[in-house]
Formats: sequence, structure tokens, C-alpha cells
Amino acid sequence: MKIVIARSGGFCWGVKRAVNMAIEATKEKGIVYSLGELIHNPQEIKRLENLGIKKINSVDEIIPETTVIIRSHGVPPKTIKALKEKNVKIIDATCPFVKAIQDKAVSLEKEHFPVCILGNSKHPEVIGIAGHVRDPFILETKEDVEKIPEMPKLGVVCQTTLNSEFLSLATSILVHKIKEIKIYNTICKATKVRQEEARKLAQEVDLMIIIGGKNSSNTTKLYLISKKVNKNSYHIESADEIKEEWFDNIKSVGITAGASTPQWIIEEVVGRVETISKRGQAVERGFCKTT
Amino acid sequence: MKIVIARSGGFCWGVKRAVNMAIEATKEKGIVYSLGELIHNPQEIKRLENLGIKKINSVDEIIPETTVIIRSHGVPPKTIKALKEKNVKIIDATCPFVKAIQDKAVSLEKEHFPVCILGNSKHPEVIGIAGHVRDPFILETKEDVEKIPEMPKLGVVCQTTLNSEFLSLATSILVHKIKEIKIYNTICKATKVRQEEARKLAQEVDLMIIIGGKNSSNTTKLYLISKKVNKNSYHIESADEIKEEWFDNIKSVGITAGASTPQWIIEEVVGRVETISKRGQAVERGFCKTT
Repeated sequence: MKIVIARSGGFCWGVKRAVNMAIEATKEKGIVYSLGELIHNPQEIKRLENLGIKKINSVDEIIPETTVIIRSHGVPPKTIKALKEKNVKIIDATCPFVKAIQDKAVSLEKEHFPVCILGNSKHPEVIGIAGHVRDPFILETKEDVEKIPEMPKLGVVCQTTLNSEFLSLATSILVHKIKEIKIYNTICKATKVRQEEARKLAQEVDLMIIIGGKNSSNTTKLYLISKKVNKNSYHIESADEIKEEWFDNIKSVGITAGASTPQWIIEEVVGRVETISKRGQAVERGFCKTT
Repeated sequence: MKIVIARSGGFCWGVKRAVNMAIEATKEKGIVYSLGELIHNPQEIKRLENLGIKKINSVDEIIPETTVIIRSHGVPPKTIKALKEKNVKIIDATCPFVKAIQDKAVSLEKEHFPVCILGNSKHPEVIGIAGHVRDPFILETKEDVEKIPEMPKLGVVCQTTLNSEFLSLATSILVHKIKEIKIYNTICKATKVRQEEARKLAQEVDLMIIIGGKNSSNTTKLYLISKKVNKNSYHIESADEIKEEWFDNIKSVGITAGASTPQWIIEEVVGRVETISKRGQAVERGFCKTT
């Protein structure tokens, strides 16, 4: 059995950076509090907890003068202000790509563009960006876009993990409502590459395994993309969810993972698939030609 | 028989203005030279010629110290320069909406945006806009858009008569190639309204007549829009092209006209249709509910 691992799967650069920053801080401080889950992966959260990285849900829960890490999604400025009032040490692990979006939103507002964010209004990244400007429009669906009134100006930024088809759709509608529109395509390249590779890999293999938290939106998107072209697609969080019967008459397996899936979970899954194949072939890493 | 005349048909504001400016100038100067056809309508051109407005094809044909009118489409700055060298009196009848597009292209270039014009590369309006900036991209087809390389910045303006569907298509592609794109939707509202009214009117009546020069691109677009929803659509230049047999079993006729069709030609057509109907009903003007 051939096992093909996607090159682009797993931790993105921003997540890797946030996890490393948190681990480094625990070495000095012992305990570090993460405002919300540091990453959307329950297994990794458990491992990090053992290292001293504890999740808290809101600023109210914070014990003054402790250390708090801001995760890669970023936060609104009012959260930073509230943290400062608690007199905590802040480790800002906001992904620099997300920080750049926050800055772009601010500069659009300075140039007198009403700001519009394309993305999920409930996602912490979008909430963080939105907090940097006054009353931005947040557009998540075609209906949201259609409700936008005619305006002389509009400035647009995107959530890093926005579906690229939604960006096309939204701009093709907005361009008829707005006389002067400035659009920053801030979709993260890592997301795009990961999705494209998953699509191609799923077409090439008999079975696809997509690893990542069930609460991770980017992993779920990967799974849906894979499922569309390969019905033998499975979304799992860890190796022990894999069932031997999946592999009857299967000659090739593709494996990819969401942005918040650590390398050790990917390795466990690959090991488990190798054990099932019982043929001990070498694992072909990065075979997928699309990366 | 009911005759419904579209409210939005005929001379647009910019064309009406250019014709009036030329006629006024003949009162003072006797002869006025138009650089290219003042409007795309052979019948009106003939009438204007009798009033003293003569067409010339290029700056080379110009007799020094005469009066030259720049038509509503506008010209590149080098043409103005060449005219000044000939020491002629210039009457600039460039449509103010077109002038605004030229200015936007210049300001985009000043803000370091490479400039892109969506429109017909051979149309004098587009040639005029293009002449105001250095090496703009001119995109006319989907293939042109797809050939655009990935770039950090791009500024976009549109020909006033651009098909709005092409604007949607082009922007939905460009937004994935350009990190920061600024789009001015400079499609003239008169064009949009005229096209929408033609579409609705063609659906309501048994027969459609679209009046305008066969060389007028906006009239041809109106005809194609009408033909798509009503097979009984006819593109004519003047009343004498109308044939009685068209009206067998016809109970309602819709009439519209391109932006360069003068009112007197529309009146002639309406009169001819009334004569054919031989019932002498009052003409219902602007019945179409869409305006």
C-alpha cells in the first residue's frame, strides 16, 4: 500500500510560532494562560496543558500579574487594554499575517473607506480585526453581500482562511454597488496551497485521511474538499479513530492535516496506517506533485 | 396597437452636450472640424454637416487656425498637444464622465497603481484614457484577464459603456492575482439604465425596434439584449427601413434608441409606426415601469 503525505498539511507557520512562543514562556514563567484555545486541536491542547499552558475563557478569569499569551488569531484592542488593566505580562503571538490585516483595516479607515471584512463573524480572527475599526461590515454569505447598500467607497479585507470562491462571488457583486472599492486579498497562501493539494491528492488516491480537531474550521473545509472528489474520505482527530476495514481493497492512502494539527499526531496516524498495511513499504512523503 | 417608447432611449447627456457645443460654435465660426465622427449616427452626421460641422480623420488633415471640436469620447493628451501646435481653437466636448475616468487613471498612477482599463482597446474613449497613463493594461476579453500576471497592486477603471457582466467576471478573476486592487466602477449610469429598460420592455411587447447607427456599439448592445428576450427585435437606422409585414398580428411595439440617436430620428420612427397601425391611438410615452 502506498502512503502519500501532503507536504502542506499540519501546523501553519503562524500556529507553529504561537505554540513555540507559549512553550518558551512556560520555561521562564512556569504557567502561561492562553486566552481561548491556543489552537483548535484537543489532543495538542492536552499536551500543552501538561507543559503549563492553561486555557482561560475570558479576561474576567485572569489572575493579575500572571503571563497571558494572545493566540495566532489576534484580539481586538479592547482586550489588550483589559489585559493591561490586570497588569499581566502579555505575550502577543498574533500571526503576523493577521496583524497585517488588522493594520490594513485601520489604514483603510484612515483613508475614509468604510471597512468590510469577508469572513465568519463568530471567528476570533474576524472579531479581532473588527475590533480595530468602527462598525465594519462583516459578510459571510451571499445574502449578506446582497444586503450591502450602494456606497461611494468601500475597503475590503479577508479572513486568512476565507474560501477563495466566496471572495470571487462577493467582489463580483460589490463592484456594482460601490463606485470606488479597494480590496486586499488577505487569504493566507498556506490555506490556499493546503486546500489545492488536498483536492489533487484526493483525486489520486483510493482513500483520504484528513487529520484535525472536529472544531477546526480549516480542517473541516479540507475534509469537505476531499469528500467532494473522493467518497473514501475520513476526518479524524487521532490515530485510534482509524478502522482496519476502511483499507479493504485500498492500494493508496493520502494523508493531510489542518493548520492546527501537530506533527506528532500526523506521525501517529502514519504509523497506524503502516501497521495496518502490514507490508512495511517506505512512506512516500510529499509525493503529491502539486506543491 | 400600443406603442411604448423607452424613457431612457436616445442621446445621452454627454452626446447632447457635444452636439450643442458644436452647433453653437458654427454660429460663431461658420465651419467647425470634428476630429472623428462627432457621434456614431450617419443621419445625424449628415444633418450636422449641413450646419457646418465637418469630420476630419486625423490631426494631419487639420488646417491651421481653424476651430476643432473634441468629441465626447475624449482624446489622449498627445492629440491636444498636436492640435496646439497647429494653432487651432480647441472646443473640448469630452464628456465630463469620461474626463473623470481620465483623471482617475492619472491619480491611480500617482498612487503607484499600475493602471488597467476594462473596455474595447480600439474604441476612441479607451484610446483617450490610455493615453493619459504609461503602458496601461487594456482588457477586453476573459482571455485578456487571465493573462494578467500576479502583481502586488493594480488600479482599474472601466469604459463608460462596458458590459456590467464583464466587470463582474474580470474582477472575480483579478482579485486572486492582485494583493491590493482598487476598482473604480466608471460604467455610465445612463448606459446601464438604457440596457435594463430595453431588456424589460422587450419582455413586455410583441415587437421591439432599436434605433441607432449600425456602427454604434452601444446600439448594437441594446439590440443584442433585446433579441435575447424577444425574437421580434429589429435594429434600424431610420424610419424608411421599417417594413409593414413586421406588424402582422402585433399588438404592442416597444421603441428604444442608442446614445447617439437624435430625437428627430426617434420621432420619425414613431410616426411611421403610428401610420402603419392606422388606428391613431395616442402614443404612450415612458410606459415602461423600469425607469
